[in-house]
Amino acid sequence: MSSSPVYPCTLHKGAVGFRVAAISATKCHQQLWRSFSGLPCKPSPISIYPTHSGFFPEKRLLWGHTGRSLPIDGNQCEAVSFEKSCSFQVGEKFQLGDVIEAQQFDRDILSAIFEVAREMENIEKNSSRSKILKGYLMATLFYEPSTRTRLSFESAMKRLGGEVLTTENAREFSSAAKGETLEDTIRTIEGYSDIIVMRHFESGAARRAAATASIPVINAGDGPGQHPTQDDIKDYLTSKGIQWEESDDLMEVASKCDVVYQTRIQRERFGERIGLYEEARGKYIVDRDVLRRMQKHAVVMHPLPRLDEITVDVDADPRAAYFRQAKNGLYIRMALLKLLLVGW
Amino acid sequence: MSSSPVYPCTLHKGAVGFRVAAISATKCHQQLWRSFSGLPCKPSPISIYPTHSGFFPEKRLLWGHTGRSLPIDGNQCEAVSFEKSCSFQVGEKFQLGDVIEAQQFDRDILSAIFEVAREMENIEKNSSRSKILKGYLMATLFYEPSTRTRLSFESAMKRLGGEVLTTENAREFSSAAKGETLEDTIRTIEGYSDIIVMRHFESGAARRAAATASIPVINAGDGPGQHPTQDDIKDYLTSKGIQWEESDDLMEVASKCDVVYQTRIQRERFGERIGLYEEARGKYIVDRDVLRRMQKHAVVMHPLPRLDEITVDVDADPRAAYFRQAKNGLYIRMALLKLLLVGW
Amino acid sequence: MSSSPVYPCTLHKGAVGFRVAAISATKCHQQLWRSFSGLPCKPSPISIYPTHSGFFPEKRLLWGHTGRSLPIDGNQCEAVSFEKSCSFQVGEKFQLGDVIEAQQFDRDILSAIFEVAREMENIEKNSSRSKILKGYLMATLFYEPSTRTRLSFESAMKRLGGEVLTTENAREFSSAAKGETLEDTIRTIEGYSDIIVMRHFESGAARRAAATASIPVINAGDGPGQHPTQDDIKDYLTSKGIQWEESDDLMEVASKCDVVYQTRIQRERFGERIGLYEEARGKYIVDRDVLRRMQKHAVVMHPLPRLDEITVDVDADPRAAYFRQAKNGLYIRMALLKLLLVGW
Repeated sequence: MSSSPVYPCTLHKGAVGFRVAAISATKCHQQLWRSFSGLPCKPSPISIYPTHSGFFPEKRLLWGHTGRSLPIDGNQCEAVSFEKSCSFQVGEKFQLGDVIEAQQFDRDILSAIFEVAREMENIEKNSSRSKILKGYLMATLFYEPSTRTRLSFESAMKRLGGEVLTTENAREFSSAAKGETLEDTIRTIEGYSDIIVMRHFESGAARRAAATASIPVINAGDGPGQHPTQDDIKDYLTSKGIQWEESDDLMEVASKCDVVYQTRIQRERFGERIGLYEEARGKYIVDRDVLRRMQKHAVVMHPLPRLDEITVDVDADPRAAYFRQAKNGLYIRMALLKLLLVGW
Repeated sequence: MSSSPVYPCTLHKGAVGFRVAAISATKCHQQLWRSFSGLPCKPSPISIYPTHSGFFPEKRLLWGHTGRSLPIDGNQCEAVSFEKSCSFQVGEKFQLGDVIEAQQFDRDILSAIFEVAREMENIEKNSSRSKILKGYLMATLFYEPSTRTRLSFESAMKRLGGEVLTTENAREFSSAAKGETLEDTIRTIEGYSDIIVMRHFESGAARRAAATASIPVINAGDGPGQHPTQDDIKDYLTSKGIQWEESDDLMEVASKCDVVYQTRIQRERFGERIGLYEEARGKYIVDRDVLRRMQKHAVVMHPLPRLDEITVDVDADPRAAYFRQAKNGLYIRMALLKLLLVGW
Repeated sequence: MSSSPVYPCTLHKGAVGFRVAAISATKCHQQLWRSFSGLPCKPSPISIYPTHSGFFPEKRLLWGHTGRSLPIDGNQCEAVSFEKSCSFQVGEKFQLGDVIEAQQFDRDILSAIFEVAREMENIEKNSSRSKILKGYLMATLFYEPSTRTRLSFESAMKRLGGEVLTTENAREFSSAAKGETLEDTIRTIEGYSDIIVMRHFESGAARRAAATASIPVINAGDGPGQHPTQDDIKDYLTSKGIQWEESDDLMEVASKCDVVYQTRIQRERFGERIGLYEEARGKYIVDRDVLRRMQKHAVVMHPLPRLDEITVDVDADPRAAYFRQAKNGLYIRMALLKLLLVGW
């Protein structure tokens, strides 16, 4: 992280903003506004404080929710506030705020994450780098079970020396008898932990959690279509000027593409229409015939779990990337946790 | 912990009782009896050994259940026994045994706990004080889920460098097919851990667990009315000479009191009487009107989760203490774990 | 671990096999074949790599599944392969591969495990030996809950400084909606952890997991009759030349034997035949009458949980070994984890 301050009142450790006398929230807003890397974060009069402890790893500053000014190093500074947390640049490097959706990442941020992930891949047991999150606590707040996702995050945290609070029955917090709001639950959990990894059954829940929490939130899925958002992906590609086309001829496409990203046909989305499900399921199977059409350098990816949409005899082919992909997902999660908790 | 022994055969490290020849259990009882700080702990002929490992942090002494005498520093000493574990004074400081019920604490003990809790609030990440429970294992033995309570204890343990064994389906231990007694379960779990935090569905279960365990037990709720005991609270207050009165006029009371401790109207207690529930629920809502009546210095507390018995627009008022209260509960739990495992 | 290599291409750290040029898999097979300590492990043309990271604690080598040769220290060496993982001798000591069934252990291996277990019993908190598994991650992959077994393994791992990823609802991985194979699940989990402790509802599942995993697998039960295998125990004893006899007269047998190993009469095995269950249950109860017949040095063992097949008044007798047995099970698990992860 650059030691030279760029924005005088950013949430950056060592920034002069906290050394001079009170800076109004409005001024902070405007400064921060300019510092966002092109994301739709806008200042807001609602006093929600996205100041994460990771921003002040040495000070362990956790800001409150009361809307009152807070003394920092003996001076007063109005807490900055904006409508939702997001990534922004600090000096030449960036600091992640929350991880909510795929559209949050541009090419620069992705490159930076991949760079950190490569470092993660080479961390050795009991090396100093395997302890960079020592003393940090991650809460996995899962409102529906997703054991694979949960274990991946927990492994990532523990591989970096951090600790984990686990719950797979977070619905207990908001059970019918109790009816607590998500916001109240988050205000409790943020008192127990340094970062929240949340999976929820309702679309938009992760964004609501991030808006409430004073610690970083990672979206590990919130309802259909998130994790990352795909329902609106075609519009998004178009809006970014990216050319794309759709096809229902797997064999023809296989010979042209660099990546075949296979996914499970989700039976639960078909409801009673079993016939349609069986048809869809049988139509796009990646097997050795598809492999033969594919280019030498191409890869087959899959988010797992798979049913029979990729046949088992494909596994031994070097182009079968899906188990490597799962392992690499671990390194990405390690990188995200590092970036969210202690920064670049 | 004072190094000068007060009671010659207390469970105090360095006490002369263990350096001289065999001391009868009866004598130990009487000595201990005098040392209890006003609690109804009485000696008992039943040989249950409440000697916790925490009493001998350096010796790691764990006593058995066989009723035989044990050699300590080359001498024989009958194990002391009493009917239930409880707090008692050692020298000028105290050592907690188990945490079972609110009535167990007098003003001195509470002050001491608050003093330790304040220290906990200021512990910095990776400081030496953040590791005082390193090497200790806490088992959270929950016979019914209570995610909030469980995570709070687990956070407390991990914030002090300790480790956790978790179960939220402890009923598995005593399932219909298996039918194990609580006592047997405790004898197994005490072999795996250094302290047990238990939540149970039966009144009195925590006391039974504490009577069996050779390690400390914390009651995180055992049936209705416990955690802490409230059904008999009026009698208790009267017996202690405390003046109290009841009122059903929230507005009038609000202007006089220092603390409004709001609680959830528990629908499950009303059964089929939905009408009565709705009436009770609507009658005592803390909203901005109530706030306006309250004194400047007063606070609104709530154990959480809340439904609508406190309106959300109260949250921003500095007198709304319930989220601070949840966070402070963490520090109290940290203090209790420290006091139970390594003493003052 | 002996530093003098015995088998030139064993999976032994520092063995010359990896320092010379390529050695064919066939040769490795034959060498390894001779090194197995009498177990029915046979070389196989199927390329499954049982090379655990624990074999190379310093190199952190994890071999792949692709069947291709791997460069080690600049040289090529075909990965050795055999049909199932098992224990084998390296020099004068042994290295455990997986722990799948009781028949896997001969007297020498058991003696070695007990020797290590005795060391485990004497490990003190925060000593260097309490950290020998620091940096290692154990995944408890339980397809059905078994809280007692799970907590015992997790305690063992944490007592040695290791960390744990927990799941008690691993069926989620292979739920009806998702239908993932056990093999695919294992390939994912092995990316997140260093050792897998698995409990499964299907006979043979542990063996399948071990055949897939590139990290050690411990069988914590897979279906009826395993954990360890008992349905075929009489044939096994006979095949080993051990004399045995059956009796249905507990009183007569009690006076002769050194060990009374009582087990729970499993109601679930009787189905609708409640009458037969009640008869079996009442017939073999170990009570004080049985104790009086037993020799002074004999012990009563029981895997726990117990119902009423041992009466509670037996507990105080020094010959009642079942709670000591549970605690000793912890030390055995600590020994197994050490042997599987860092070797002798």
